[in-house]
Amino acid sequence: MSLSLYEVTVPTFLHTLHNLKGILEKAVAHAEARKFDANVFMTMRLYPDMFPLSRQVQIAGDVAKGAAARLSGTEPPKFEDNETTLAELVTRVTKTIDYLQGFKPEQFTDAESRVIALKTPRNSFNFKAVDFVRHWALPNFFFHVTTTYALLRHGGVELGKPDYLGNVPQV
Amino acid sequence: MSLSLYEVTVPTFLHTLHNLKGILEKAVAHAEARKFDANVFMTMRLYPDMFPLSRQVQIAGDVAKGAAARLSGTEPPKFEDNETTLAELVTRVTKTIDYLQGFKPEQFTDAESRVIALKTPRNSFNFKAVDFVRHWALPNFFFHVTTTYALLRHGGVELGKPDYLGNVPQV
Repeated sequence: MSLSLYEVTVPTFLHTLHNLKGILEKAVAHAEARKFDANVFMTMRLYPDMFPLSRQVQIAGDVAKGAAARLSGTEPPKFEDNETTLAELVTRVTKTIDYLQGFKPEQFTDAESRVIALKTPRNSFNFKAVDFVRHWALPNFFFHVTTTYALLRHGGVELGKPDYLGNVPQV
Repeated sequence: MSLSLYEVTVPTFLHTLHNLKGILEKAVAHAEARKFDANVFMTMRLYPDMFPLSRQVQIAGDVAKGAAARLSGTEPPKFEDNETTLAELVTRVTKTIDYLQGFKPEQFTDAESRVIALKTPRNSFNFKAVDFVRHWALPNFFFHVTTTYALLRHGGVELGKPDYLGNVPQV
């Protein structure tokens, strides 16, 4: 028995992006209850040369939409990185979820035989699709969701592992 | 075309555990160069009720070994959680790598039809194998590796995303 590259990417991203939305919404509620501006979280960083929370959320979504697009041989839409509030970040995550929900498993039929070409500011890469998924897309995606979680926990928001893992379907 | 559950788990864990070793070794070198005890990192936390670094590393490895064992219908070895130094954590990660390297793809032939039963301190779960992998094992694994990275970055160790992603094989 076996899985398609669709099955290990799109549903994985969707599940965790839903959880990310919930995490951001808890941060807003936390700030409201304490009467401070939730948007101070936007610029929080764990170290001066790390990305702030806003960028962590943007990248998490962009890794997911970029991966789904590349694996299906399509072009991802470009989202402007102009969010200034947590509410706008939630909207962006929702937009990413809507985009991912548009993919059909059959668009990934040829995914495994694709070479995924990637350019970063410093390098360009050519990955086998399976290596792109397991050593690039998934690690990057979870990195930025976890760092968002870490920033909010560090900032005092009451979150727990269940917020990150979400409700995993059971048999 | 399609993948096996082996392909999305064991090589994924191995690749990132190698990177985790490198990250811990950089933390040791960082402390040595500055003449402070690297083991002060062991008890660092991002928030008082989060796990310290030592526990993050232990759990990352345990998620990987537990997942490989459960998917192949075997029993994972129990590792004592008694590390008190970063050097001992590196040894533990190495032990986990050695264990994972012992798995053969054919041990995962029936993996997809398994129900993965899991008990946590608060709950018990019965997952379809694919949901266990994409919504439990992988997210948890990357969560604890990323949190280890975040703790060390927060503590001033000079690390970058390439340390986390490692050298991804190219075509």
